[in-house]
Amino acid sequence: MATTTIPAHLVRRLRELGCDEGFGIVGDFALRLFGRLHELGFPIRVTADEQGAGFAADAYARHRGIGLCAVTYGVGGLKVVNATAGAWAESVPMLVVSGSPGLAERRGDPLLHHKVKTFRTQLDVFEDLTVAEAVLDEPATAAKEIDRVISACLLEQRPGYLEIPRDLIDVEIDSVEAPLVVPRPPVAEDALREGLEDVLQRVRGARSKVLVAGLHAARRRVGADFRSLAEFLEAPVVTGALAKGFFPERHPLSRGVYMGAVSRPEVVDLVEQTDLLLAFGVLYSDLTSGAFTAAVDPSRIVHATDRDLLVGHRTYPDVPLWAFLPRLLEALLTARRGAARSWTFREPAPVAASSEPLSVESVMRLVEASLDERHGVIFEPGECLFSSVDFAAPSWAMSNPYYASMGYGAPAALGAGRADPARRPVVLSGDGAFLMTGLEAANARFHGVKPIILILDNHGYGTQRPMLDGPFNDIPCLRSERLPEVFGAGKGFLCEDEASLARALATAVATDDLVIIRAVVPKGRPSAPLARLAAALKKGV
Amino acid sequence: MATTTIPAHLVRRLRELGCDEGFGIVGDFALRLFGRLHELGFPIRVTADEQGAGFAADAYARHRGIGLCAVTYGVGGLKVVNATAGAWAESVPMLVVSGSPGLAERRGDPLLHHKVKTFRTQLDVFEDLTVAEAVLDEPATAAKEIDRVISACLLEQRPGYLEIPRDLIDVEIDSVEAPLVVPRPPVAEDALREGLEDVLQRVRGARSKVLVAGLHAARRRVGADFRSLAEFLEAPVVTGALAKGFFPERHPLSRGVYMGAVSRPEVVDLVEQTDLLLAFGVLYSDLTSGAFTAAVDPSRIVHATDRDLLVGHRTYPDVPLWAFLPRLLEALLTARRGAARSWTFREPAPVAASSEPLSVESVMRLVEASLDERHGVIFEPGECLFSSVDFAAPSWAMSNPYYASMGYGAPAALGAGRADPARRPVVLSGDGAFLMTGLEAANARFHGVKPIILILDNHGYGTQRPMLDGPFNDIPCLRSERLPEVFGAGKGFLCEDEASLARALATAVATDDLVIIRAVVPKGRPSAPLARLAAALKKGV
Repeated sequence: MATTTIPAHLVRRLRELGCDEGFGIVGDFALRLFGRLHELGFPIRVTADEQGAGFAADAYARHRGIGLCAVTYGVGGLKVVNATAGAWAESVPMLVVSGSPGLAERRGDPLLHHKVKTFRTQLDVFEDLTVAEAVLDEPATAAKEIDRVISACLLEQRPGYLEIPRDLIDVEIDSVEAPLVVPRPPVAEDALREGLEDVLQRVRGARSKVLVAGLHAARRRVGADFRSLAEFLEAPVVTGALAKGFFPERHPLSRGVYMGAVSRPEVVDLVEQTDLLLAFGVLYSDLTSGAFTAAVDPSRIVHATDRDLLVGHRTYPDVPLWAFLPRLLEALLTARRGAARSWTFREPAPVAASSEPLSVESVMRLVEASLDERHGVIFEPGECLFSSVDFAAPSWAMSNPYYASMGYGAPAALGAGRADPARRPVVLSGDGAFLMTGLEAANARFHGVKPIILILDNHGYGTQRPMLDGPFNDIPCLRSERLPEVFGAGKGFLCEDEASLARALATAVATDDLVIIRAVVPKGRPSAPLARLAAALKKGV
Repeated sequence: MATTTIPAHLVRRLRELGCDEGFGIVGDFALRLFGRLHELGFPIRVTADEQGAGFAADAYARHRGIGLCAVTYGVGGLKVVNATAGAWAESVPMLVVSGSPGLAERRGDPLLHHKVKTFRTQLDVFEDLTVAEAVLDEPATAAKEIDRVISACLLEQRPGYLEIPRDLIDVEIDSVEAPLVVPRPPVAEDALREGLEDVLQRVRGARSKVLVAGLHAARRRVGADFRSLAEFLEAPVVTGALAKGFFPERHPLSRGVYMGAVSRPEVVDLVEQTDLLLAFGVLYSDLTSGAFTAAVDPSRIVHATDRDLLVGHRTYPDVPLWAFLPRLLEALLTARRGAARSWTFREPAPVAASSEPLSVESVMRLVEASLDERHGVIFEPGECLFSSVDFAAPSWAMSNPYYASMGYGAPAALGAGRADPARRPVVLSGDGAFLMTGLEAANARFHGVKPIILILDNHGYGTQRPMLDGPFNDIPCLRSERLPEVFGAGKGFLCEDEASLARALATAVATDDLVIIRAVVPKGRPSAPLARLAAALKKGV
């Protein structure tokens, strides 16, 4: 039987799936693993802190379909717990691979450094947060175990966990020769046919239609079909916050993000008053639906979920969106008469930059007007996320709007920038979120990613203030525009009025290096979307 | 029956135990909790990231006996998992208190933001890492549950976890009127008497004696008795790395830190060749014993542990060190003849600063010579920790030498500085560790703590390089000496030779503000202790 090694099999599988590199920090229990991955030409990009590696791998996975976070035992693995939880919450297939003490050195249960309660503790923790786990301690099964965990990550779109005792790294293991075939859940063909007829009838009978794309539509990569459907129906499109950018936001049919009460009233009216809502893979969470303020009559909804097709009050089980959507499109296109219409994308309206002090809204308008299809935009949880509902991103957009872990932005720029080298990441962050992980910008640049980071400085935790204010919302003020001097690279700008921000953005777009812009807005003046959300959330505090 | 509230009872207990403040970051599920703590005059000091709050609370607990880390649900709690694991590993009674979704809003199991698998996930994770946990969802038992968890933390010297649904914050709960009495484990009086005789006989018969203090001696706060014992016996003292600074290191009897092969040969010889080794609460872990290179004949050891007294090959069960040490001292002092000798502390030898480029050793010598009893020293894992075996700290010293989580230093300065306002924290960090959490220096200063942070810049993960080198050990170079410009406060210095470092240190000690010094040492020239350790660890990689 052919043999291989754990690192070689892991790298082979990841490459088959489009993943060429990982993110992580070495440690002695992971040193041989990192060494072998390096020899295999599979780099692990070092981040400032392991937390950043978790977020970077998550962002990479959102683009490439799978991402790798490689860490050492205990002090490494337990630092990416929160990022792994975020990957679970937002259905991201991120693989955490941890080096661990060798089997031989565990004998007698000694107090090896980085150990917590027992040698199982780290595995116990990840079992609470991942869809599949394996400790690769058996040469006969290690390759199969790698395949099992990766398959589960892809099938369920959730994070997974592999632990490799360091004395197994160079051991020969049994090989699995065939490429990985990820099983897909069964599709009930009869139910699909019947459900399709049901949907076609509703589509034909509806006077008005709105399409909604959600998280699972994005994860299943059905963007091309979804766009064809929208263009065929000439129906307006909204996305959930978790799928922002899945449909081109400068497409004439795009109406932006629907987030219940957070969205503009005209978007809310459009969605809530249409005759037929055709939804694909939407996750109904409190934040992404605007604190559950979304109110649509269920009988007017067709919802193709990741597993079932819901038509009004009927459920067609085992009709997943990725099986249903192509068939729906096929049925409609067969009936098409005449040539397909062509669509010209909108340009954002030019913004006149005055000498007025900045507001959240004017910052967003100026950034929106400065970017083009060469830029992907990352919105940090907070004001930037809420303002994103009114922001037409020029290409992809990212955030973690459901799990909403602050500090995602800067490391996500590294992950997304490596995953999609054709686009420059633009991070829209708050001062609170940037304080958490801002040094990751240095690591992004270290690995050739040169983001534009705009810090919307609203003087602390501005998202909390409208709900309850106190000194716990105050944070130190960083002159982050001077960080390029600390990094020895890039440019920094402090902007307090519209004209200076417009100039800074023009320079940023023209500069082939890291740019950090601190845009200062007044304290205690939340944006309109945040004010609407805060009013809805305040009841719970 | 008298009533109270959860925040009021929690604050009352913490104050009884000497804890006046906590560390943490707010979030909407914790907003009302933070608001009420603020009204009760119990501040929660905001950190840059939750990880910093965990480390700060750990450091505070090491000084005060208990520390509080307050966080929000999911994105907060799961960011302090690693710090909590570290508190477990190093026996630190740190209490994590997390706000969580209200019981009412959990009905129907909705997708509330920050939720992972279920509403229990965060509790499940902490059960793997803490000694006691409670979800305070019952007004009749909440106060008792708080007492139970805090008691377990103190009894076992481990972290604990409390979760408070936000709709319980203002609910009246049954009060517990009496002050908290923490139960102590039983002491077997007969075994103690017999063990004491056994030990006294050995002490009298031994030609040479060495005292060793370890982790549990430090946690049980028996420093005064231990010092009296050393001075009575006039025996040289070494500490484990986990108890560094527990015995005054400039005391003439101090011989520094014993860490197996990491220590200087004369310290190793002293310990390994003495007639009798009197050890108190030592934790035998691989790093702290120098990769298990410590070799002492067990028949020459008396070890008073946290639970039992071990005399050679005999065990006296239930004779804990904190019961045994005062009795041993009493028995010896009764027999004393003549007045107690007085001891004059050593001053570090003045160091001639040349124009030579810096080395790890010269940096350590220069820092050591610059500090006095107004300074507490925090050693980051890495070169600074290993070099600390030869560094005589002028007052307290801290590190996390067993769990060895990098990034501990800067946030620990905040925690230790708040816990002991009489001493200024001096952080000796590596460039890798500082990159992880360095922005916490801004938060330390925000809360009135003005540390001196010395970054030993050895160009990446210098601790790994002697074992296996590769690009995974390279990190971006921060000009951290310019961070004070970013913080808008403090002074920064770049030092590459001895004279400039000596000048910078002199200014730092005289400056009443944050100081950041970047001391650049050559790449690939590990200190002697690290070289010795790397040789021992390399076998495992």
